[in-house]
Amino acid sequence: MTDVLASGVHNAITDVPGIRVGQVTVREEGRFNTGITAIVPDTLPIPAAVFAGNGYGKLIGVTQIQELGEIETPILLTGTLSAFRVADHLVSWMLQQQGNEEMTSVNPVVGETNDGYLSDIRARPLAEEHVFAALQSATDGPVVQGCVGAGAGTSMCGFKGGIGTSSRIVSLQDGDAFTIGALAQTNFGGTLTIAGKPYPVPIDSSPEFGSCMIVVATDASLDARQLARVARRAVFAMARVGASYSHGSGDYAIAISTRRDGSLPDAALSPIFTATMDAVESALLNSALHAETTHGPDGRVRRSLPDCYPDI
Amino acid sequence: MTDVLASGVHNAITDVPGIRVGQVTVREEGRFNTGITAIVPDTLPIPAAVFAGNGYGKLIGVTQIQELGEIETPILLTGTLSAFRVADHLVSWMLQQQGNEEMTSVNPVVGETNDGYLSDIRARPLAEEHVFAALQSATDGPVVQGCVGAGAGTSMCGFKGGIGTSSRIVSLQDGDAFTIGALAQTNFGGTLTIAGKPYPVPIDSSPEFGSCMIVVATDASLDARQLARVARRAVFAMARVGASYSHGSGDYAIAISTRRDGSLPDAALSPIFTATMDAVESALLNSALHAETTHGPDGRVRRSLPDCYPDI
Amino acid sequence: MTDVLASGVHNAITDVPGIRVGQVTVREEGRFNTGITAIVPDTLPIPAAVFAGNGYGKLIGVTQIQELGEIETPILLTGTLSAFRVADHLVSWMLQQQGNEEMTSVNPVVGETNDGYLSDIRARPLAEEHVFAALQSATDGPVVQGCVGAGAGTSMCGFKGGIGTSSRIVSLQDGDAFTIGALAQTNFGGTLTIAGKPYPVPIDSSPEFGSCMIVVATDASLDARQLARVARRAVFAMARVGASYSHGSGDYAIAISTRRDGSLPDAALSPIFTATMDAVESALLNSALHAETTHGPDGRVRRSLPDCYPDI
Amino acid sequence: MTDVLASGVHNAITDVPGIRVGQVTVREEGRFNTGITAIVPDTLPIPAAVFAGNGYGKLIGVTQIQELGEIETPILLTGTLSAFRVADHLVSWMLQQQGNEEMTSVNPVVGETNDGYLSDIRARPLAEEHVFAALQSATDGPVVQGCVGAGAGTSMCGFKGGIGTSSRIVSLQDGDAFTIGALAQTNFGGTLTIAGKPYPVPIDSSPEFGSCMIVVATDASLDARQLARVARRAVFAMARVGASYSHGSGDYAIAISTRRDGSLPDAALSPIFTATMDAVESALLNSALHAETTHGPDGRVRRSLPDCYPDI
Repeated sequence: MTDVLASGVHNAITDVPGIRVGQVTVREEGRFNTGITAIVPDTLPIPAAVFAGNGYGKLIGVTQIQELGEIETPILLTGTLSAFRVADHLVSWMLQQQGNEEMTSVNPVVGETNDGYLSDIRARPLAEEHVFAALQSATDGPVVQGCVGAGAGTSMCGFKGGIGTSSRIVSLQDGDAFTIGALAQTNFGGTLTIAGKPYPVPIDSSPEFGSCMIVVATDASLDARQLARVARRAVFAMARVGASYSHGSGDYAIAISTRRDGSLPDAALSPIFTATMDAVESALLNSALHAETTHGPDGRVRRSLPDCYPDI
Repeated sequence: MTDVLASGVHNAITDVPGIRVGQVTVREEGRFNTGITAIVPDTLPIPAAVFAGNGYGKLIGVTQIQELGEIETPILLTGTLSAFRVADHLVSWMLQQQGNEEMTSVNPVVGETNDGYLSDIRARPLAEEHVFAALQSATDGPVVQGCVGAGAGTSMCGFKGGIGTSSRIVSLQDGDAFTIGALAQTNFGGTLTIAGKPYPVPIDSSPEFGSCMIVVATDASLDARQLARVARRAVFAMARVGASYSHGSGDYAIAISTRRDGSLPDAALSPIFTATMDAVESALLNSALHAETTHGPDGRVRRSLPDCYPDI
Repeated sequence: MTDVLASGVHNAITDVPGIRVGQVTVREEGRFNTGITAIVPDTLPIPAAVFAGNGYGKLIGVTQIQELGEIETPILLTGTLSAFRVADHLVSWMLQQQGNEEMTSVNPVVGETNDGYLSDIRARPLAEEHVFAALQSATDGPVVQGCVGAGAGTSMCGFKGGIGTSSRIVSLQDGDAFTIGALAQTNFGGTLTIAGKPYPVPIDSSPEFGSCMIVVATDASLDARQLARVARRAVFAMARVGASYSHGSGDYAIAISTRRDGSLPDAALSPIFTATMDAVESALLNSALHAETTHGPDGRVRRSLPDCYPDI
Repeated sequence: MTDVLASGVHNAITDVPGIRVGQVTVREEGRFNTGITAIVPDTLPIPAAVFAGNGYGKLIGVTQIQELGEIETPILLTGTLSAFRVADHLVSWMLQQQGNEEMTSVNPVVGETNDGYLSDIRARPLAEEHVFAALQSATDGPVVQGCVGAGAGTSMCGFKGGIGTSSRIVSLQDGDAFTIGALAQTNFGGTLTIAGKPYPVPIDSSPEFGSCMIVVATDASLDARQLARVARRAVFAMARVGASYSHGSGDYAIAISTRRDGSLPDAALSPIFTATMDAVESALLNSALHAETTHGPDGRVRRSLPDCYPDI
């Protein structure tokens, strides 16, 4: 970690002005550990880009983001098989918003990772009420991390993963300062590595599990092409914490800017790239550090990093 | 049109052995003209590729197709705002298939165009029963064209569009013969052109409307990279019939091969590209030639090409 | 052709303010018909994008254009095997420009098609003097078309091809007017089609030959993402004149904007897309209409369209 | 580092059967530290893919690799401004090979990083003789690392970089064993990190410099789509050693397979991905560990890692 940049007030994606987060968790003992995490921009549409580091996933909304360089809905994260009905309910929510009475087209953006080890994924328990609750509860301020929302049932490097977030402040030479915020739904395999020290997978765990969804937000003026550059760095940062990028891992980043007023010169982007990688690295680690040992169906258990390594 | 290749028996995508088509149409006078068209391969997964000529659309399933080079479900076409619940029901159908009892991940492929001019698109009337009916009714043999399935409410160059299909037979020098089949959901703008002759848009019509979904299937042994080459030609062929490729038009092609036994040398592909362009051109025209004047909500009407040009 | 837009004064890419064209032709009886066509913007760098409709070609400079969304040198077109030394000489020219004394990196952009049927391509006769002459002779005003520069030895649909250019004027609703200019080096196969009428390949010709390089320039404020949308339409327009997009054809478009002051809303782009397709279609046809029957090595001949169809 | 796989005999890309390496170094005191590194497959063409992690570079040959999924020449690495004439000489070499007397098209593949800090890059001293010597000297067996060939004048994380190589053996469950070899030309910025321990940039050095070219070769049967998956992991592995992926860094990987006999199932690829990341990580580190303090023009010096950290 080359981390010399300060974090924002909450060390969260919500440190980016205009970005709120809402989460709904669905738990039922022995059956469900799933939910929804919503990243809700105050203003839409806003510039956006996607990078599929490993596209073995069901991320919804990709081609339109690539064509128009923007998102026109909040970004929802959830479990794999629920992604489509969550997208459908997000459409419902969009159609019901004031001013959208004539809307006949909308591009919902929904990412997912597979929480089927700790949740009955085939049952798809998430309904309209959950989607609406996640969206309506979105606030700025601190973000709950660990076993919450879309991270309730996910795993990371053999430990319990979940939702993690972080932020960094970038001061450019001309005096401008920008915030880079990251939020991750961690569900990938590898050997968890913190500041270069490996934390081997517990012997009773399965090392390879699938996927990571990362959202990076900034109030720096970046257009879609530049956000694609940011999104790539977000996926690159997974290597710092030991990600294996295995065949079955859908590893994606979505990068968004809250600004629509042109774009910085590319020559100014290196500090933003550094901040992105640092914020993502911290967000990934935070997801594991805040997670708790979780029990799923059929007696399956995923132990938390702190439970396995109490001295961490 | 450089069309010197023969068509298959039904001049339809079903001329490709192992490809079936099923369609469900939902009509309610003054309210609905919508539906589902299902392209159902006998065997899955099979090699596949996507080209987004203009990615202003909601095509579901893209990144995994690009990563793995295959589809693992049938391809469903429908109206824009219904795409997500149709995908969710396609997941249900997949989970219920024999042998899929342990399936915890699947990548549904659903394309769409916007039938909101002739159908109450915000109401999203398509339910699980419609999805299942489209899938279960899929057969080989002739394909109903025009105002049917996902084409019930679509428009093409100011006329009534819909579903069209066609096929071509390619004989390679070594004696092998392959079938190329195309099926299109036509909903795009431009000046309809048949064999070089323009059929101007009716004066009482709106010239620009959105999108075209094209599916190309073949029993030639093509891998995903080669199918991407085919998919590009499918979108290129839209220019032959006068497509305007306007900003709002989501113009996509999905190409699939029913074979998994390696791949032809690329040097053998030119005749397959020619057949693709000819089959797509014919499929696009067939959608308009078989369509009928259709009435939608609020007194909106889309007249058919034969009604506007009776001598065609 | 849906052509209702006016052309610029010269019906040439030079109608775009700030775009000049220079050409050098190398002819030696029975040996060489080759050369260089230079598209020279007054100001560099400027926004740019590339679309590879069929990437079987040697276009130099692609990844940096895609990463940074700009070109930093003029665009040179030439014959296939000369592309690399032409790029090297373009580097020399850039290093020698006033103000570039400290330049240690530059991304030359050189496109090519294969003129080996009418020129001794293996000999690579183009030297620094030719590159510099093409660049230094660049002017606005009329552009010589047909058998000139990079088009001296190329073929189109079995006829003599070459360099063609055209322009269109787009007036947006807010009163702004933009120019779209296209220049093409035509060397592709297919059945030449003019306004829907086919002109079959001469019986003594070879129908399939390779590649087309298209450059589109505009003074509309478009960023790189939007220029990529324009570049795709440029390749789509090849279908209007009968292009076969065969396996061996490297079909590329590069789109550039002379403006760096932000970008138009995407919803305003459809007229620009229409103008692009019309300008490219005309540029392609102009290349053949202005070409003359040409003799190459070993008695090879490529007849001109006007010679084959005197009444055209 | 999750390194549990064995290396090949030479711990070099030449451990992959059929891959040879040749290098030519051009040194002139106070002026030149540059050269060419050639990766020469015994058989061509072979499957290939490219990933541009950050496409700010001049990699030559990209679109044809992407279209056809193969390389048809050896891969040459060199300094930035020499890339084009090196490519031209590679064309010459190809045209002169036995059996290529009728060759009229070829796609040379040349990568580069900027050695302008330690070499007079504007002078472009590499001539045909150097290109031919690199190609003709290519052998299997051990590969010289550090300040050699294309790495003579490059830097890595503020230390002297250069050429590094490594290999890993992958045994699949069915008993097959494959070799993955990596070779890197390191010239990128960041904080060099070995097994998690950072080696901060020397106080008298410049931290950010540009670019990394990585070549991965294997004798596993992978097609171009799968090799693209491998190429992405190669760039991801740069994060393990502290790469900053800054704006100015052209970070590329080319992946090639020596086999043309179909492709492994994707589900078997995770061990190959692991081996790729481990081999690339080692290759990157080897380039610095084998480098020596180097003096360039105008008194510029780049100190080696061992000189800065003698106890390493």
